[in-house]
Amino acid sequence: MEDFLMKKVLAINSGSSTFKYKLFSVSDEKVLASGMADRVGLDGSTFEIKLADGTKHVEHVKIPDQETAVKLLIENLKKYKVIDNIHEIIGVGHRIVAGGEDFKESTIITKDNIQKVFDLTQYAPLHNMPEAMGIEAFMNILPDVPQVGVFDTSFHQSLDPVHYLYSIPYEYYEKYKVRKYGAHGTSVRYIVQRSSELLHKDPKDLKLIVCHLGSGASITAVKNGKSYDTSMGFSPLAGITMSTRSGDVDPSLLEYIMNKEHLDIDQIIAVLNKKSGLLGISGISPDMRDINTSDKPRAKLARKIFINRIIRYIGAYYAEMGGADAIIFTAGVGEHDKGVRQAVMEQLAFMGIDPDLEANETNGEKFITKPDSKIKVMIVPTDEELMIERDVARLAKLD
Amino acid sequence: MEDFLMKKVLAINSGSSTFKYKLFSVSDEKVLASGMADRVGLDGSTFEIKLADGTKHVEHVKIPDQETAVKLLIENLKKYKVIDNIHEIIGVGHRIVAGGEDFKESTIITKDNIQKVFDLTQYAPLHNMPEAMGIEAFMNILPDVPQVGVFDTSFHQSLDPVHYLYSIPYEYYEKYKVRKYGAHGTSVRYIVQRSSELLHKDPKDLKLIVCHLGSGASITAVKNGKSYDTSMGFSPLAGITMSTRSGDVDPSLLEYIMNKEHLDIDQIIAVLNKKSGLLGISGISPDMRDINTSDKPRAKLARKIFINRIIRYIGAYYAEMGGADAIIFTAGVGEHDKGVRQAVMEQLAFMGIDPDLEANETNGEKFITKPDSKIKVMIVPTDEELMIERDVARLAKLD
Repeated sequence: MEDFLMKKVLAINSGSSTFKYKLFSVSDEKVLASGMADRVGLDGSTFEIKLADGTKHVEHVKIPDQETAVKLLIENLKKYKVIDNIHEIIGVGHRIVAGGEDFKESTIITKDNIQKVFDLTQYAPLHNMPEAMGIEAFMNILPDVPQVGVFDTSFHQSLDPVHYLYSIPYEYYEKYKVRKYGAHGTSVRYIVQRSSELLHKDPKDLKLIVCHLGSGASITAVKNGKSYDTSMGFSPLAGITMSTRSGDVDPSLLEYIMNKEHLDIDQIIAVLNKKSGLLGISGISPDMRDINTSDKPRAKLARKIFINRIIRYIGAYYAEMGGADAIIFTAGVGEHDKGVRQAVMEQLAFMGIDPDLEANETNGEKFITKPDSKIKVMIVPTDEELMIERDVARLAKLD
Repeated sequence: MEDFLMKKVLAINSGSSTFKYKLFSVSDEKVLASGMADRVGLDGSTFEIKLADGTKHVEHVKIPDQETAVKLLIENLKKYKVIDNIHEIIGVGHRIVAGGEDFKESTIITKDNIQKVFDLTQYAPLHNMPEAMGIEAFMNILPDVPQVGVFDTSFHQSLDPVHYLYSIPYEYYEKYKVRKYGAHGTSVRYIVQRSSELLHKDPKDLKLIVCHLGSGASITAVKNGKSYDTSMGFSPLAGITMSTRSGDVDPSLLEYIMNKEHLDIDQIIAVLNKKSGLLGISGISPDMRDINTSDKPRAKLARKIFINRIIRYIGAYYAEMGGADAIIFTAGVGEHDKGVRQAVMEQLAFMGIDPDLEANETNGEKFITKPDSKIKVMIVPTDEELMIERDVARLAKLD
């Protein structure tokens, strides 16, 4: 029993220059430590650890690569007595954006299959590469600890071909697996579990629309507990307006702009990923907080367009599923921007949404519709790391 | 009065190798003759004329260019005594797909502004070139008769920037006018007038969703008699699945397929325009009649995807407009495919659609929901040529 109580799981979220972590105790799913290595490979890098008692320590230290970040993490966990012995860590879980058709569920990653994670980089160029490198770093530092890949696409593997196929020559699917994969699946999976509890219903009896509105943003239709359709596509570029990503555009405009601006395809895709969305429309910022406090007409326009695209997808999925029991807001903007939530609720009031504007004034897990609202609307802060912890705990025990 | 009774208007719809026409009597909007020149510029060309009494004459004759087609048309109209004198034709109207931001409404085309029509070819490469060439042919043969451009995009000029702007760098709109233009506007304009009559309501009091389902296909939300949002975009490539056009795709997949197949941007856009849609998925045919009678799984899949995309957009526009009074099916598939109509009505029954499946069994202008259905569904055969005739009659009188 004592041994069990000491078991711990690390959840890792690696970006191109960031390396975020959370250490969980397996017995009670409590967070024992969290933090990040920032500016990995850049000047001015820092390592941060926040302990369960709330104290935070920041170290200015050279972090040239992810392996150094991993070593610093282990050192700090020992230094602050979060772990006594490295063997308390029974597994490390890694958030990975693209799993393609190779990874239909969370999977133990070994030297045998890590190449597949690297290969999937072409599906999510901004994400998979640092994520795969994070796994390699752990394999080198903790060679005996199982590394688990938790894929943002897995939850969407339940999609029907009617929803995941594009209307393009079928051979592109057969030869190259070009299809909708979606993203944010780990977040949506958490939201489905948690919101079902709050609704006191079995997920199998629910039609949910999950609005994950972070700097990446997506809308997912969830029917019978499974992903039914989702706004992100082959890559995380498609769907609604995001911080710097365009979401849906007419493909013809790529050709047109490429000719006018003398860009190649990689350059225009980079523009659509990094210079579009809220930033592109507003010309001010990719951050909704800046957009919201600006008086500039293009900032107001960007916000209206963002809200419109959410409404468009909620309507689409309401029609596809034949109704909706609840709409859930989560992630940065979803959890903290009452104005976005209010605008969506008011425009969709005709569908049977009765907003509780007082409840909506503040953030945190709650209902923001009145008790008799036909469609419930909720704020549910997401917790991808907890889902990663659970998958690792399950798979590490099987290992 | 006799002079007025003899006034006639030609409505022209030019394709890359076809040249369709209808001659109207202005006083009563009756069709006096119709037909087409087929395989213009190709081997085996034919000229066809159908008279008001139903008789049809087909001539196998060399038609190297549109000017020859126009000359043949004039000759035939005289030969079959549809007109006595060329001066009875008070104007010629031309359907033009792309009007950009230059042509916000139907416009008399002269030597001074025809270059703009040619320039807009880059917005609708398959369409604007032959259409502009058709106008030039008439200018040469009938130099004193006003030529009127009737633009498929005009009706959508009422869109709000929130709906017509893409979430891309704003400068692309400022510099190059990259935005949503839509298409099928002339058809939708007719449908709005006609369906309002059938509903005994002023268009200003209606929210309509018009499903124009031809080989090109689009869904348009119409609020207060004006286009509110529409599924086609910068070009007629975007939106729902079409005969050979992909509709919406994740822009990232262009980059991915281009790399895999060694295609340039023009080639992949050509694939999305000409080898995608129902043809691309099914591998059988771009024609819904062939798809519908095929037992092949990919044909069934193509049909399901087509229906899904219609439902997706109806839902989106239902949400955007805050409801819908009626959904209208028109154009080839919309007017003749009862299975598509039935599937859409049944999947959306939960929104307050009560299908009249007996009425739906046959085609023709009618309601296909029961009288108490909250949302009415109708078949309304479209008549773009009549809209063209009306615009020409109005503008030619002003001239």
